[in-house]
Amino acid sequence: MVDTAVSNSRFLKALRREPVDCTPIWIMRQAGRYLPEYRKTREQAGDFLSLMKNPELACEVTLQPLRRFPLDAAILFSDILTIPDAMGLGLHFVEGEGPQFTSPIKTAADVQSLRLPDPEEKLPYVLDAVKLIKRELANQVPLIGFSGSPWTLACYMVEGGSSKEFALVKGMAYSNPQLMHQLLTLLADSVAQYLKAQIMAGVDTVMIFDTWGGVLTPTRYQNFSLYYMHKIVAALKSDAATRDTPTILFTKNGGQWLSKIAETGCSAVGVDWTTDLHQAKVQVGDRVALQGNLDPCVLYAPPETIRQEVQQVLTAFGDGPGHIFNLGHGIHQHINPDHVAVLVDAVHELSRKA
Amino acid sequence: MVDTAVSNSRFLKALRREPVDCTPIWIMRQAGRYLPEYRKTREQAGDFLSLMKNPELACEVTLQPLRRFPLDAAILFSDILTIPDAMGLGLHFVEGEGPQFTSPIKTAADVQSLRLPDPEEKLPYVLDAVKLIKRELANQVPLIGFSGSPWTLACYMVEGGSSKEFALVKGMAYSNPQLMHQLLTLLADSVAQYLKAQIMAGVDTVMIFDTWGGVLTPTRYQNFSLYYMHKIVAALKSDAATRDTPTILFTKNGGQWLSKIAETGCSAVGVDWTTDLHQAKVQVGDRVALQGNLDPCVLYAPPETIRQEVQQVLTAFGDGPGHIFNLGHGIHQHINPDHVAVLVDAVHELSRKA
Repeated sequence: MVDTAVSNSRFLKALRREPVDCTPIWIMRQAGRYLPEYRKTREQAGDFLSLMKNPELACEVTLQPLRRFPLDAAILFSDILTIPDAMGLGLHFVEGEGPQFTSPIKTAADVQSLRLPDPEEKLPYVLDAVKLIKRELANQVPLIGFSGSPWTLACYMVEGGSSKEFALVKGMAYSNPQLMHQLLTLLADSVAQYLKAQIMAGVDTVMIFDTWGGVLTPTRYQNFSLYYMHKIVAALKSDAATRDTPTILFTKNGGQWLSKIAETGCSAVGVDWTTDLHQAKVQVGDRVALQGNLDPCVLYAPPETIRQEVQQVLTAFGDGPGHIFNLGHGIHQHINPDHVAVLVDAVHELSRKA
Repeated sequence: MVDTAVSNSRFLKALRREPVDCTPIWIMRQAGRYLPEYRKTREQAGDFLSLMKNPELACEVTLQPLRRFPLDAAILFSDILTIPDAMGLGLHFVEGEGPQFTSPIKTAADVQSLRLPDPEEKLPYVLDAVKLIKRELANQVPLIGFSGSPWTLACYMVEGGSSKEFALVKGMAYSNPQLMHQLLTLLADSVAQYLKAQIMAGVDTVMIFDTWGGVLTPTRYQNFSLYYMHKIVAALKSDAATRDTPTILFTKNGGQWLSKIAETGCSAVGVDWTTDLHQAKVQVGDRVALQGNLDPCVLYAPPETIRQEVQQVLTAFGDGPGHIFNLGHGIHQHINPDHVAVLVDAVHELSRKA
């Protein structure tokens, strides 16, 4: 059941590479710590996990940035690591150190003990949040669902948290590739099922965040990361219920592999700020839309600089359909919300067709 | 005064893109914590800084890996941050957190108060170490000198240490580009003078480590990082005393900009593991040699995998002169030294011309 108002939104049109009146924009982590109202709701919840697992509060923070800025899409307030949490690894957050797992994956036995979590049973808070948000949005803008990529989930699951060198997970990939593929296969099946459940609950598009694909060699990226994202895209396309839902793949530091990513049959490719959008377009041709790619640090600059940088990104993309404006990574917590207003207005205004 | 034995070494020949009997190899951070003898000398010195600032001990640890492995070059044991330390910012190391500065650069007044440090006066321990090492090496292998790039020095100087988001230094670059250029100009002059002093003291080639150039946009990389490395290369080439000393530039995560780096007139370009060496060669043509690019995590794998991965790198580079084998980044501290022996032997054996 396609809703016409949402289907005709700027954002979904751009994802389908159809003409739009002006370039749509949303911002990675748009519901986040840079907003005082978010910090208040989070305080009310107690901590990040309690906020994320409470559908009413997750809905509230999802909607907060849309009340301030004329953004073209909402994104489900959640985390990329819900699946390993549902697998029983014990997700928690240590202030200033990012996500950590109580029971990281260390051995073959650890991998073999993992079970694919049924989203309805193990992740109901996500699906409930999606339903609530969709109701509250009332088709004003589309809703984006998401997950971490299998490789990125594996990075956190094996390292037990963030890492600089990824010695454990890459060590496992080089020393015991079979075991790594076993883990990634399970994760790909889990992500596919999880994204399907999000779509059934109402999201209008799904994005896969491959935060750590860029730490691999070109060959390993294809074998350990892209292969499994491709499997997920294929799984969604092979099911009548999810086949028409657009998919966005984003590998941070994947600028050298955009063409390979476009080959998966996804609808759009996320581009961080290290690649010029014109070059990105040359790589992907007319196969996919592109999403990005302003350096998040531009938002520390004064309004006039922000407008100039927006213009540069728009100019680099040039004419033609299929651009969704975004930052090249999540917005930083110390950004002034007034600068976000400048950004959103600049994108709409400077891209509007005369 | 060119020493024939050193000048005819595999390493310097490869830097000049001349034919060699087999591919030369050295390893970033080859004098480091993965070696028990290094850990012993460091303990004797007390800490990293005391070790680095003691020419006899710096000489000792420089030579340690050469006693174990038939490496084709020695690299001065030092740190990329000696210049800001000599400028009075107070370099120190916090266990597990990397380098930090006591007095980071926060304001325009901070930048204006900086003075170019005279290497003879402020960094004599480096030059004394170079002279000692050259004497001890007795021309068996060449010695590599180095510095951090101006942009990378600025990153640490403004952030006060390592960073994930580089909000302060990139914020300054976007908000006050003039101030950033003032800082980078001083740093480029300092690095050029410092590398000249190292060459006068005896190093056979110099390498500039641009560890953080890869966090910039393509345009900002050219303006804030590459421009200043280019200035340094030009400064060395314009001086009769340093004109013939080969230069190596290495921007981590700079795989998309190799052609631009090659345009600086440097002798070789370092390549991390995210770029295939064949693709790198296509980008740089016959202008420069290439140095790299094995993923450091390969050394966690068993010997047979290490040999296979070495073969893949050699195959990717293919025929023709101008390859210096290396890791794509510094060796990790928990690597088994026996695996390094496997690596060095594999490179020599598998590349030897029949």
